[in-house]
Amino acid sequence: MLKAADIMSTDVATIRGSATVAEAVKLLKERGVRSLIVQRRHDQDAYGLISETDIVYKVTAYGKDPKRVRVCDIMSKPCIVVNPDLGVEYVARLFANTGIHQAPVIQGDLLGMITITDILTKGDFVEQPKEVVLEQRIQQAIERARAICAEQGPMSRECAVAWDEVEELQAEAAHQRDSKFYDAGKTAFEIYCEEHPDALEARIYDT
Amino acid sequence: MLKAADIMSTDVATIRGSATVAEAVKLLKERGVRSLIVQRRHDQDAYGLISETDIVYKVTAYGKDPKRVRVCDIMSKPCIVVNPDLGVEYVARLFANTGIHQAPVIQGDLLGMITITDILTKGDFVEQPKEVVLEQRIQQAIERARAICAEQGPMSRECAVAWDEVEELQAEAAHQRDSKFYDAGKTAFEIYCEEHPDALEARIYDT
Amino acid sequence: MLKAADIMSTDVATIRGSATVAEAVKLLKERGVRSLIVQRRHDQDAYGLISETDIVYKVTAYGKDPKRVRVCDIMSKPCIVVNPDLGVEYVARLFANTGIHQAPVIQGDLLGMITITDILTKGDFVEQPKEVVLEQRIQQAIERARAICAEQGPMSRECAVAWDEVEELQAEAAHQRDSKFYDAGKTAFEIYCEEHPDALEARIYDT
Amino acid sequence: MLKAADIMSTDVATIRGSATVAEAVKLLKERGVRSLIVQRRHDQDAYGLISETDIVYKVTAYGKDPKRVRVCDIMSKPCIVVNPDLGVEYVARLFANTGIHQAPVIQGDLLGMITITDILTKGDFVEQPKEVVLEQRIQQAIERARAICAEQGPMSRECAVAWDEVEELQAEAAHQRDSKFYDAGKTAFEIYCEEHPDALEARIYDT
Amino acid sequence: MLKAADIMSTDVATIRGSATVAEAVKLLKERGVRSLIVQRRHDQDAYGLISETDIVYKVTAYGKDPKRVRVCDIMSKPCIVVNPDLGVEYVARLFANTGIHQAPVIQGDLLGMITITDILTKGDFVEQPKEVVLEQRIQQAIERARAICAEQGPMSRECAVAWDEVEELQAEAAHQRDSKFYDAGKTAFEIYCEEHPDALEARIYDT
Amino acid sequence: MLKAADIMSTDVATIRGSATVAEAVKLLKERGVRSLIVQRRHDQDAYGLISETDIVYKVTAYGKDPKRVRVCDIMSKPCIVVNPDLGVEYVARLFANTGIHQAPVIQGDLLGMITITDILTKGDFVEQPKEVVLEQRIQQAIERARAICAEQGPMSRECAVAWDEVEELQAEAAHQRDSKFYDAGKTAFEIYCEEHPDALEARIYDT
Repeated sequence: MLKAADIMSTDVATIRGSATVAEAVKLLKERGVRSLIVQRRHDQDAYGLISETDIVYKVTAYGKDPKRVRVCDIMSKPCIVVNPDLGVEYVARLFANTGIHQAPVIQGDLLGMITITDILTKGDFVEQPKEVVLEQRIQQAIERARAICAEQGPMSRECAVAWDEVEELQAEAAHQRDSKFYDAGKTAFEIYCEEHPDALEARIYDT
Repeated sequence: MLKAADIMSTDVATIRGSATVAEAVKLLKERGVRSLIVQRRHDQDAYGLISETDIVYKVTAYGKDPKRVRVCDIMSKPCIVVNPDLGVEYVARLFANTGIHQAPVIQGDLLGMITITDILTKGDFVEQPKEVVLEQRIQQAIERARAICAEQGPMSRECAVAWDEVEELQAEAAHQRDSKFYDAGKTAFEIYCEEHPDALEARIYDT
Repeated sequence: MLKAADIMSTDVATIRGSATVAEAVKLLKERGVRSLIVQRRHDQDAYGLISETDIVYKVTAYGKDPKRVRVCDIMSKPCIVVNPDLGVEYVARLFANTGIHQAPVIQGDLLGMITITDILTKGDFVEQPKEVVLEQRIQQAIERARAICAEQGPMSRECAVAWDEVEELQAEAAHQRDSKFYDAGKTAFEIYCEEHPDALEARIYDT
Repeated sequence: MLKAADIMSTDVATIRGSATVAEAVKLLKERGVRSLIVQRRHDQDAYGLISETDIVYKVTAYGKDPKRVRVCDIMSKPCIVVNPDLGVEYVARLFANTGIHQAPVIQGDLLGMITITDILTKGDFVEQPKEVVLEQRIQQAIERARAICAEQGPMSRECAVAWDEVEELQAEAAHQRDSKFYDAGKTAFEIYCEEHPDALEARIYDT
Repeated sequence: MLKAADIMSTDVATIRGSATVAEAVKLLKERGVRSLIVQRRHDQDAYGLISETDIVYKVTAYGKDPKRVRVCDIMSKPCIVVNPDLGVEYVARLFANTGIHQAPVIQGDLLGMITITDILTKGDFVEQPKEVVLEQRIQQAIERARAICAEQGPMSRECAVAWDEVEELQAEAAHQRDSKFYDAGKTAFEIYCEEHPDALEARIYDT
Repeated sequence: MLKAADIMSTDVATIRGSATVAEAVKLLKERGVRSLIVQRRHDQDAYGLISETDIVYKVTAYGKDPKRVRVCDIMSKPCIVVNPDLGVEYVARLFANTGIHQAPVIQGDLLGMITITDILTKGDFVEQPKEVVLEQRIQQAIERARAICAEQGPMSRECAVAWDEVEELQAEAAHQRDSKFYDAGKTAFEIYCEEHPDALEARIYDT
């Protein structure tokens, strides 16, 4: 799975909070980008972000004079940040849940910027949709669990651990689907338990 | 003041509602745009819109397979539309109030598309902020009203009409400022009335 | 299907933006309506709208004096507009998506006003629910497609076009249901393809 | 000040949760109202509410068949309720803060229904805006406090209590104005304190 | 089913609207609570509420001086109130629908306070989930209806009433599930009707 | 200024995504906390968060059986995270802007948890409100700038840099106040420029 660091832009345009919006518009046009990072003043300070949307919604929409409004008046600060290791699907979901279109990638310092367009054009979600990947992994894990339990016996610790792994993957798939409640029938482990009534016991002892 | 028709793109990319999201992603990349218009099926049908944000928020974020999701499942339909004559500042405000980033321009048929970026890069809000333009117009209207009233007399119909115009402009400016309540002191007409107590009467008779 | 023009009121009450809220309340009571259109000042200007909700939420709720607040201070401008040809179901969905209760009907000029109550009392959604209408149309289209393909052969262009139509209707039905993702099994065309493996090919060539 | 009980309708239309939406539409038309109360089944049950907006947004907008959807599927339950003693301005503010247009008036049992239209047409906010009423009351309270303090001495308990009352009224006015932060200069009491430095002390002792 | 009065706290901390936020913080710490009720000034007045969230979001977040901001500037007033008889599940749903974390319990006067934590720690939703309780009740009601109809005949008034009760419980269960539309197949009554075609008629006559 | 790491809890309770909500409730009660961190499965995985509010809003409110719902069905994932160096006021503002009540503190790994209550009870915003601190710093910076400019001359680079610093602080104060637009008169530098017309020029050259 690709992660934030793999698809972010590292050439990030920055601006000072005391600059005017007119200066920000000039920089946006020159750099051909849709948002700027607002620099921090000290280590405890937060990063800010100003986007073309902030300018159009808050300055143009009210007929304000961009030469008289400052970046710090309309920026988002602190902005939501992304860790470089975060998987791209999770970046997409973070964006969806919080309604944002871009975020700085931070680990101590500013490493880059990631946008909706980066996710759409650099991500691999068309070729490798997680839904499909997870389905395959769950099948493999079930086969593996069945094999281990056949070998080690349904009451072995190894068997219980193997089914735990299946269950975690199923939980992840459930969360991916965003199905509101995951009680749609038996899990693979429950089906296995019916066939091997002792298995459940083993697992309870082991946990 | 520029209007929607002046800054819209007329080369609009369209797609069918029954196409897959994978096809939409391909088209977005090929055309280098951030949204597509979803075609109507008949005259009473509404236009739809699918943006890169719709795809990232609703497909990528949930690990869905873009080849199994259709455009009609995630599009916005009916979408908010813009008339070609609408002033750019009003387009910006409509976008701000409804939280959208683009809209088709319609007059009977689809004429074009207008986006946040069009407003930022093709608009004249940096050079001609409405705030400043309105201030100038109000000053001119006040001077004109004072001249007319001096000539025609404070109780004339012409004098009353001239002050009405000033007041309308002040109301527009108040709305532009988005000041929540506009009761911040006397209007230019109220000041004039104090100097010419008869003026108010004339106006009430005439309305 | 009924359209906006069929159920709108053409006798619309209007007011000037510089009028006071007290005047708006008087007009609302006299006319027995729940909202007023705020007149435009020039061609590029947007229509505004003031409703009883705006007045109660923004003036009454804060104990403001309606004689000191102007219509332009609390109106919605620009307001969301409806084209006269738009189907009533789409008007309802536009209202639902944007949380509004009324909208002016515009085509160049102001033609009328349409409200939630118009949709409820003048619409035909109880007698002719679209869900039912679409189900019937899909059945008819499937029968027609099967007949055409039997006559012209599964690899004919006519057969492919007929199934395209079925698919468009199914896509519309999926969107109507607002089912988040439309991957709930095979479409009628896919079932047909299994019976006539050549059909798919024909369609790909033709598109 | 008028209260909820003074302007509510006592002739409330009710419906069962298991009725169909088609039945609700029929009842809304017959009674000429815009919402119905959904009956409780037992004492611990909550009241529900179904409005024309619920029907248009959730049934018409998706082409659903009103004969196949039940009231309980789309009603708001539990709904926000109003106490009969609550002042009309506070009802308006509760409506504004929670985005509702009507609410049942409850005191143990269902007493009536209050809507935006009731507030607009039966309220006295045009004749008696609270803003104006409060300004007068604050003036009177200040005069009274000054008189009491002159008579009883600035260090008397009576003087302190009188200023407390002024301050409470000023706090109410501040809240009415919805001014985000009330630190706009000295209060009447602070001005008094500067003239009578002992007053503050008296008050601290007494509280 | 537990009701609000069973799990509320009766020892409620209150404060005056004219107190400073610094005083509120002190009281919150001393009492170890997360919100305070703001006292009413007279009978038509509304209760207010100030929570630690109000203070952190509106004062701390903007670096405001808590000694210069008053409780009345940042409180929620009027706040949403709960009746003492309301079932705990409905309290939870009211909280969920309106996004609140606590509410005063009122019946004429202030009886107590109920919070998210009260619901989590004092409620019985883990031991007695309503879903399970309702399933059992529906089963019992169906059995009872079948018995009554067998005894009194499918066309008897008693039989019709018994099925009405089943239907009400099914409607409640549907609402609990928050399934958007409850048209997922036949109800128990519809199945019964197929077996006893006369039953429906009886019911229609009796209603 | 205190930072996140200074007031966070380091003893964080965690749970697996495949655990049931009933298990989460048990853990919340045992540990006396209001939220749990949901463990990651691998390095690119995101942290999740489940709070008492999630449980009450999504399980209790719908009468769901907590033994049949899993943590992964109702958790927030990915959750918004906080860097350990972020100033407490910025944490508060991040919480206010995104509507959250707690967040994990992350730097590569999970370091701790920070909640609204931590900010209220361990923060120093009552004793050291940023508003007051900034006012003092701005005064000091102005005095320093005036001194430097007097010494080095109004056209010196040092003078320009000193005024830049003042301006940055004023911008920060403006942002803190959340004043929508910061055009409320001349800045300290503008006043200085009027006295020393050459100063501006110096600065333009130097930037």
